[in-house]
Amino acid sequence: MDLHEYMNNVARDIDLMIRRHFGDATDELNKASAHLLLAGGKRLRPSILLLSADAVKKGSSYDLMHAALAVELTHTFTLIHDDIMDRDVERRGVPTVHTLWNEPTAILAGDVLYARAFEFLSHAPAPDSAKLRAVSLLARTCAQICEGQHMDMSFEKRTDVTEGEYLEMVQKKTGTLFAASAAIGAILAGGKPTQVDAVHQFGLLCGIAFQIQDDLIDIMSRSERTGKDRASDIRKEKQTLIAIKAREKGLDLSSYRHVLSDREVDEVVRKLRSAGIIEEVQQVAQDMVERGIKTLQILPESDERALLLSMGEFFVARRH
Amino acid sequence: MDLHEYMNNVARDIDLMIRRHFGDATDELNKASAHLLLAGGKRLRPSILLLSADAVKKGSSYDLMHAALAVELTHTFTLIHDDIMDRDVERRGVPTVHTLWNEPTAILAGDVLYARAFEFLSHAPAPDSAKLRAVSLLARTCAQICEGQHMDMSFEKRTDVTEGEYLEMVQKKTGTLFAASAAIGAILAGGKPTQVDAVHQFGLLCGIAFQIQDDLIDIMSRSERTGKDRASDIRKEKQTLIAIKAREKGLDLSSYRHVLSDREVDEVVRKLRSAGIIEEVQQVAQDMVERGIKTLQILPESDERALLLSMGEFFVARRH
Repeated sequence: MDLHEYMNNVARDIDLMIRRHFGDATDELNKASAHLLLAGGKRLRPSILLLSADAVKKGSSYDLMHAALAVELTHTFTLIHDDIMDRDVERRGVPTVHTLWNEPTAILAGDVLYARAFEFLSHAPAPDSAKLRAVSLLARTCAQICEGQHMDMSFEKRTDVTEGEYLEMVQKKTGTLFAASAAIGAILAGGKPTQVDAVHQFGLLCGIAFQIQDDLIDIMSRSERTGKDRASDIRKEKQTLIAIKAREKGLDLSSYRHVLSDREVDEVVRKLRSAGIIEEVQQVAQDMVERGIKTLQILPESDERALLLSMGEFFVARRH
Repeated sequence: MDLHEYMNNVARDIDLMIRRHFGDATDELNKASAHLLLAGGKRLRPSILLLSADAVKKGSSYDLMHAALAVELTHTFTLIHDDIMDRDVERRGVPTVHTLWNEPTAILAGDVLYARAFEFLSHAPAPDSAKLRAVSLLARTCAQICEGQHMDMSFEKRTDVTEGEYLEMVQKKTGTLFAASAAIGAILAGGKPTQVDAVHQFGLLCGIAFQIQDDLIDIMSRSERTGKDRASDIRKEKQTLIAIKAREKGLDLSSYRHVLSDREVDEVVRKLRSAGIIEEVQQVAQDMVERGIKTLQILPESDERALLLSMGEFFVARRH
């Protein structure tokens, strides 16, 4: 099976579970909790959890669909809360929860999914000691995601963010949940500590690379392809690795604080390219994925390990 | 030891733990998370957890301080989020988190405590199977608290809330966490299912009674005693049991939608008393506590069981 077929199958299964558990809500709060979940998504974190489980012990992912759902619920709760904070009006092609309902309901809708994540995880058919380690890891991860989001917001008021600070923020905000997803899969499958550490590290590095690639896509891809407002990071002077490197090289992007035409974005990309910035940033992401892939060498060779490697490569090859 | 001495000791121990774990925060997010925790509180939920543990198995509470802290963290996270939704500016004599920082930081500060609650609970020195049941119960409880808060907010737009709806809301918003606190204490102490059910029911009934008493205190106690703005529920036309019963008896309180002088509040109380409403509401709370106390009879006689009973009585006897 190739990676995209695998990921599509997982997404379909997770979508089915979501409809079963969240699709019949009749009250406003549970409808609000279900809204973004039902809007689809690539379900990358469930995929990485299930592949990590099978890479450690073949066939173990069969029992771990509820754990896979738990990490998707965790991701979705953070999106609902982030959208309130960032005042975003659209996500996954649908209006955000606080736009469609209101902020209080959106806070509670996120809080409900937060609870359900722990509930689903605590009911996985796995040994109790493994489940407790998974619960504890998910809890620590949630606290780190909050720290990452807080760092990200604090960067908005600054123009002197360093590469190190950016990478710490992305590690916390995005890397830790990919890392925890992979590790939870391995833990629940009965993986050895070295195996759990390996997939955790793989998830962390690939998660950081995933976010860097997201920043590249924001500026490189045509809007019609991503469905997003192109180069919004440049317009908002977001402290991405691209912007940080541009500043360090004396490239001034401050004249682009308006909605940019594709011609203007192409001009920015040209400037960034000729300063070598696009290539440098791509290289950072590429190096991370390669380091992540190396950590997986301690796992036995298997189709699932191969799919995990492909997933890492896909994270930095994707164009939307 | 009498109840107040016991509760003061627990509050002191919990305060010490809070200072140890949260007192040294240097970054803004962790300072915001610690703010309301450090402002004190009666620590009722930790007390009920520890007493339930000892009532089931003497001496077991010694190991359960982290679990006791977990339910206090859960309570505090809900307060931080509720304060944002209700736009409250003060709590426990200090400015609310979103007032002192901002709403995004307050959402995240609550989310951090939410995570820490599960982290502390998953590390309690108790058998894994018991801890997992506790984690699962806490997760279900958090979802119910959210439902209760959402019901409470939805009542603001209505003037036809029934007694049954009010009691369901209070059960979810306040009762369930007292119930879960008691049950978690009993579960982690190795209590039998009947014992766990008994203290859960006790906590639930006393928690509901606690909230009804809170509503009575709002109107009965002088502001200098509670530190709260007196009769604010009447002014805001809040759908409390008092207001619902007043409406049912044709007592019109709609002329009191302004900040009331003590003389005006006394007039309202007189009207409510002569319609028999104050006494009826007190009786509802009293009956709940008595039913709760009866469920504890299956526990062996002990000092801790006696203290639990006193705690139930205290919930409806307190004047602030």
